[in-house]
Amino acid sequence: MAGDIRVCFIGDSFVQGVGDPEYRGWVGRVLQATRVPGGEVTGFNLGIRRNTSDEVLARCWEEVSRRLSPGADNRLVVSFGSNDAVEEDGSVRVAPERTLDNLTQLLTECARRGMPALVVGPPPVCSAGPAHLERLLSLNHRLEAVCTRAGVPWVPVTEALAQDRVWRAEAESGDGAHPGAGGYTGLAALVLAAGWQRWISAPGHGPAVTPGAAGSPAV
Amino acid sequence: MAGDIRVCFIGDSFVQGVGDPEYRGWVGRVLQATRVPGGEVTGFNLGIRRNTSDEVLARCWEEVSRRLSPGADNRLVVSFGSNDAVEEDGSVRVAPERTLDNLTQLLTECARRGMPALVVGPPPVCSAGPAHLERLLSLNHRLEAVCTRAGVPWVPVTEALAQDRVWRAEAESGDGAHPGAGGYTGLAALVLAAGWQRWISAPGHGPAVTPGAAGSPAV
Repeated sequence: MAGDIRVCFIGDSFVQGVGDPEYRGWVGRVLQATRVPGGEVTGFNLGIRRNTSDEVLARCWEEVSRRLSPGADNRLVVSFGSNDAVEEDGSVRVAPERTLDNLTQLLTECARRGMPALVVGPPPVCSAGPAHLERLLSLNHRLEAVCTRAGVPWVPVTEALAQDRVWRAEAESGDGAHPGAGGYTGLAALVLAAGWQRWISAPGHGPAVTPGAAGSPAV
Repeated sequence: MAGDIRVCFIGDSFVQGVGDPEYRGWVGRVLQATRVPGGEVTGFNLGIRRNTSDEVLARCWEEVSRRLSPGADNRLVVSFGSNDAVEEDGSVRVAPERTLDNLTQLLTECARRGMPALVVGPPPVCSAGPAHLERLLSLNHRLEAVCTRAGVPWVPVTEALAQDRVWRAEAESGDGAHPGAGGYTGLAALVLAAGWQRWISAPGHGPAVTPGAAGSPAV
């Protein structure tokens, strides 16, 4: 059916919208603002709190495939990295090279399926301190390069949210990491301003990533 | 962590909230109204449009297990049946005996895991006509009996929604099946009025279902 757009959003607690008293996060707000003349968008929220990019990659295609419809315009939105960069027992949960490789693998499979993708950068975790933010900012440039190579839109959010007073205040009065309705509204605005509606209307498929590159470091 | 409640909602398009312009459906509205003093509720929406009880059972534990936390208070909310009763090519998609057996199997596994469950009845599909509604109403009594036997709360909604003017008007001005924000608000109110908050506060585990009964017709 033309205009039957199905978007799976896969990622971590920020994708899930943890902390939002309205229980829809940035994903629900972006979908509410989406316009599809003569059609509709079905959204599937596949965010899981604490998920790293390893965990997202491991479950992605199994969960996404069940939610697609062969005749529909199927899409994937990916957002991870905040948990990868968290330090536990003296080392980060997932090393940046593997985060990049996981994204490359995901986008390679999207290209193989002819499935338009869009990547949203990792939101900051206020309670994780300045060293975590530095790691995320460094990861950002390399995630962007992976997206550019795959011809996939990239939405940077880390720096803007780290400086966003509402995001910071809500996170700090919450669990230290997750904002409330205001912070998620701000994140939704970043996604919308980065060309979301254009991507919904005409995503293009981007150049296919060279299959051989999937197993090698991404940048 | 005490007060760390995780609820997976599994089912069909009504669980997913298809048609809701706010993209949160009854699930998001019920979660917003939930109170957990000193704690929080994390919700996972595992609704997939067109899913029958066969499809829900096939994916349930794989998807639910990934979303649980060993130390958390993990719960399952199930709602299916509307798609089972839809006629395609001269027969219903899933015969009522199998719908009942699928629910029995799900609740048996919940009991085995000590995981509190709650079942919400199948919403009506206005465009499917009076014969479909009759099948759903007949299924209701038998689904309730399965729940009673398993000691699991049951929330009947079919008849109330079939008579709900807002639900009907929104479904009819939409795709014939799914309501908008008003209809989902009404469905959320039914769930809340049936003792949702009591179940959140003190679910009990219910008597275990006799293991041998899982493979036989439920009632």
